[in-house]
Amino acid sequence: MTVYKVKGMTCAGCARAIERAIRKQVTGNPAVEVDLEKGEVQVGNDADPQIVNFAIEGLGYQVEAVR
Amino acid sequence: MTVYKVKGMTCAGCARAIERAIRKQVTGNPAVEVDLEKGEVQVGNDADPQIVNFAIEGLGYQVEAVR
Repeated sequence: MTVYKVKGMTCAGCARAIERAIRKQVTGNPAVEVDLEKGEVQVGNDADPQIVNFAIEGLGYQVEAVR
Repeated sequence: MTVYKVKGMTCAGCARAIERAIRKQVTGNPAVEVDLEKGEVQVGNDADPQIVNFAIEGLGYQVEAVR
């Protein structure tokens, strides 16, 4: 899994919105897991990081780090 | 403006995500205003309500009423 550190994701509604946007925009039905407390989104390695970034930032959240 | 009563929109992050999704998915650059306390999203009348619904529900929020 690739871990995206996301800023501004503060409630369960945010978490769900981000998960949905990634699933919709990234091809190949990637695994997505959100850890709200850590402010992290984990996405399957086969997902294109640029598309994942685009999906998250398109909703107004900021991707601070990818590892 | 058309008013969409939205369930599950609980923080500023949600509000921004919904606003962004509507702007991206509805053609014609509609006016969008979110009232977080009331749980309402106002969208310009020229916007297709089906597309607005689709944008909101696509993020996992529930549209309870349109007026």
